Amino acid sequence: MMPLTALCALRFPCAMAFLDHIHACNRHDLDRFRPLVVAGQHVGWVRGDVAWHLEHHADTFAVSEDMVGLHPRLAAPDDRSAAVDRVCQELAEQWKTPSLRGERYRVARRFSDTPLMTVDRGVVSLFGVRAFGVHVNGFVRDGTKLKLWVAKRAVDKAVAPGKLDNLVAGGQPAHLSLMDNLVKEAAEEADIPEALARTARPVGAISYCLEDQWGLKPDVMYCYDLEVPKGFTPHNTDGEVEHFTLMDVEEVAHRVRTTQDFKFNVNLVILDFLIRHGVLCPDSESDYADIVHGLKRGW
Amino acid sequence: MMPLTALCALRFPCAMAFLDHIHACNRHDLDRFRPLVVAGQHVGWVRGDVAWHLEHHADTFAVSEDMVGLHPRLAAPDDRSAAVDRVCQELAEQWKTPSLRGERYRVARRFSDTPLMTVDRGVVSLFGVRAFGVHVNGFVRDGTKLKLWVAKRAVDKAVAPGKLDNLVAGGQPAHLSLMDNLVKEAAEEADIPEALARTARPVGAISYCLEDQWGLKPDVMYCYDLEVPKGFTPHNTDGEVEHFTLMDVEEVAHRVRTTQDFKFNVNLVILDFLIRHGVLCPDSESDYADIVHGLKRGW
Repeated sequence: MMPLTALCALRFPCAMAFLDHIHACNRHDLDRFRPLVVAGQHVGWVRGDVAWHLEHHADTFAVSEDMVGLHPRLAAPDDRSAAVDRVCQELAEQWKTPSLRGERYRVARRFSDTPLMTVDRGVVSLFGVRAFGVHVNGFVRDGTKLKLWVAKRAVDKAVAPGKLDNLVAGGQPAHLSLMDNLVKEAAEEADIPEALARTARPVGAISYCLEDQWGLKPDVMYCYDLEVPKGFTPHNTDGEVEHFTLMDVEEVAHRVRTTQDFKFNVNLVILDFLIRHGVLCPDSESDYADIVHGLKRGW
Repeated sequence: MMPLTALCALRFPCAMAFLDHIHACNRHDLDRFRPLVVAGQHVGWVRGDVAWHLEHHADTFAVSEDMVGLHPRLAAPDDRSAAVDRVCQELAEQWKTPSLRGERYRVARRFSDTPLMTVDRGVVSLFGVRAFGVHVNGFVRDGTKLKLWVAKRAVDKAVAPGKLDNLVAGGQPAHLSLMDNLVKEAAEEADIPEALARTARPVGAISYCLEDQWGLKPDVMYCYDLEVPKGFTPHNTDGEVEHFTLMDVEEVAHRVRTTQDFKFNVNLVILDFLIRHGVLCPDSESDYADIVHGLKRGW
């Protein structure tokens, strides 16, 4: 049977717009969530159904009608992280909430703040904490034309299997700098030598806020442009990418505008690229300012 | 006597931060304003003291506690514009509100929408309608280094006299496309030939919302990057610029970070340039994401 997203793309082949991708990444109903407060700081959101589960773990969570906090005994970041992990492990076994993936994400209001604790990547949306990632637009200049390297995600990926992706992208683990994470992911995903990866230029950040099956994803994607030499061809080394294709930027723009071929949040990274490189023009793109501002809606 | 802004810069020589410029452009108290509604669309904001003046012109304005509208007889855009002009002329004579400048701005929720009317540039903030402008970062590549052409505004300018500015910048009149306005301003302000001006690349938009002496400025600045050949030197032709200087991008960044030398909203345009060109780095700039998102606060 054809998956639902493919059906939608077929039913509305021309009715999509760039803004639809932004709306799709910002669907949520905050009325169903309670603030997660750690050490006096509002660092996340917990949905009512999840808060009900947490209420049964009163040695770790302090749940009220207005908010979800941690037990006062958990004063040190490491103690908080360990206690929350234990509860998440139990919930995953009892209630089939997401299982732990063994990768730590920092819990802080801003990426540069000292983390108040860490949580496992698998349960980030359960607590609605801001997750960070790096996305790399790999591009080639061909005279005045631009081409983008596009990855096709492996069909066995848990999230967005088979969808198109940036040349390099990855979630941001707690213990690395953004650039070191970029270098690591560039090597694993596309076999990009470190010296080339380090020429990637930071060009901004995109934010969105999406409700998923278990909670909220208020994500920030740090974006980088990496100009790749004409002779270089990326190769995947970790099995997460099926293959890479070099596409004209106009074709990428057309596919973002008219299809759901790209992973949901990668559409936003590409829109930002199209804006910054003048591929979209404010005199002819009627949604221009809405797109520009829509790429920062999750902050 | 030293002007107040110079005093502030002296008193806090190192205490400024990039974010201060964003905060300075977004100071307002919407509680003091009533929505301006034209043809059922919320297109602006009128402060209570201005609404009190408009109440005395009941043949043009329909003022209530909740909102400011136009008299129902004013159904056509041209009729609305003419009636509002007449009232503004009277207010300027009686109450010393800003005088008309003879340049028309469109009144619409978005730049691409069909204008519901036009108002004179001088009274835009009186009605808190969104004003648009074009700002051009004129830059020169010198090997891997970037340099920016910086204008010093004439000391007799009504707004921000003597402050530093972009190579080209101008408000957006109702009857021109953004690119045609850019070409016109580039010729007048910097003697840039049309063929060169048209190579300017649209790179996004910035928004802010600032309360001024008479009302609200929810402005959108469309930003362009213009790579200028090394041999080209801009010359002002309309008396609005005292002189131009070619500055290393690091010096520009330093002056934005530590001084108030640049015009208030030009700081934001330069911050956007520094972000997009990788001069600011998310691993070392602790306010990075706040700056990125702060540049879109007026939408």
